[in-house]
Amino acid sequence: MRHTKSALLLGAACAVAAAAAIGAAGQPAPAPNGIDFPRDYKDWRVISVSDRTDNHTMRVIVGNDIAVAAARAGRTSPWPDGAVVGKVVWKLAKDPLWQAATVPGELVHVEFMSKDSRKFSATGGWGFSRWRGMDLQPYGKDASFVQECFGCHSPAKAQDYVFTRPAAMP
Amino acid sequence: MRHTKSALLLGAACAVAAAAAIGAAGQPAPAPNGIDFPRDYKDWRVISVSDRTDNHTMRVIVGNDIAVAAARAGRTSPWPDGAVVGKVVWKLAKDPLWQAATVPGELVHVEFMSKDSRKFSATGGWGFSRWRGMDLQPYGKDASFVQECFGCHSPAKAQDYVFTRPAAMP
Repeated sequence: MRHTKSALLLGAACAVAAAAAIGAAGQPAPAPNGIDFPRDYKDWRVISVSDRTDNHTMRVIVGNDIAVAAARAGRTSPWPDGAVVGKVVWKLAKDPLWQAATVPGELVHVEFMSKDSRKFSATGGWGFSRWRGMDLQPYGKDASFVQECFGCHSPAKAQDYVFTRPAAMP
Repeated sequence: MRHTKSALLLGAACAVAAAAAIGAAGQPAPAPNGIDFPRDYKDWRVISVSDRTDNHTMRVIVGNDIAVAAARAGRTSPWPDGAVVGKVVWKLAKDPLWQAATVPGELVHVEFMSKDSRKFSATGGWGFSRWRGMDLQPYGKDASFVQECFGCHSPAKAQDYVFTRPAAMP
C-alpha cells in the first residue's frame, strides 16, 4: 500500500511538473544549467538554414540582435559575447502540393547557444540549452547535459564551435 | 560601321543598365511589373523553410509584419491585404564539417508575393516579384512574367496560392 501511495504521489508530482513546464505566464522551465528560454526567439532574424540527412531533420538558424549584427559584419571568429544563436528543428515532411518538396513536419526541438566567454569558459565560451516539443520541455537531467552538446560541436572548433556559416543574403 | 557603332552603344547601354541594377542608394531596379524590392526583408521573421529536390535548392520563407501576424493567428485563408511573403533560395551545398548536413550554397534568388486583392486581382490577389543573384537583377523581360509565377502557384489555389504552411514554432 505504501508503494502504491508513493507511486500515486510521484505520478501526481510528475503531472504537476509537466504542467509547470510552461507556467501561467507562458514561460517554460529553465534548462538544467539555469539558462532561461528566450521568449522572443520567434522575432529573431535569419542567419541560415540546414538539413541533416542522418536524423531526417530540417531547421532554420536565427540570431538575437548581437548575433545577427556579428553575422552580417563577418565578426564570427569568435562570435561576440551576448550573441545567442537559435535553431528551430523539424522532422521532414512531404509537401502534399508539390511532390518534390520537403517541408517542416513535427517540431523536434528549439535549441540555443549563448556566448559568454567567461561564464561558459569550460565549454568554449558557449552556454547550451534545448527545449523539446511544442510544450518546450527542458532537455537534460542535470547541468552536465552540456557535455553532450559541446562534444558534438567539437568538429566546429575552428568556427568558434558554431557549425552555421551565415548564408548569403543580398 | 553604323552597325558596329550601334553595337558599341548598345553594349555601353547594357553595361550602364547592369551597373544601375543596384543604384547608388543600394536600391535594386524594380520588377518589370513595378514592384519595388523590399529593402528590409532581411529583418523579416521566419514563417517556414522548404527544400526542392527537383531543382536542388533550399530556402527560408519570411514575412513582413502583416504576413507574420496572419501566419501566427492562422488567418491565411485568405492572407490579408498588405501581407508580403518572401523566399530566399539557395543552391544546396555540403557542410564540410558534417558530411550528412546540407547547407546553403550560392544564392539563386529572392522572391516575393505581395497581397493586394484589388490591384492584383488578375493573379489571385498576389503581385509576384523576383530578383536574381547577389546583384539582385529583376526577373522577367516585361510585366507578363507574372503569368509564369501564377501558373506555377496554381496547385496551391486552395491555400490562397501560397505553397507555404506556417511551420510549428512554440
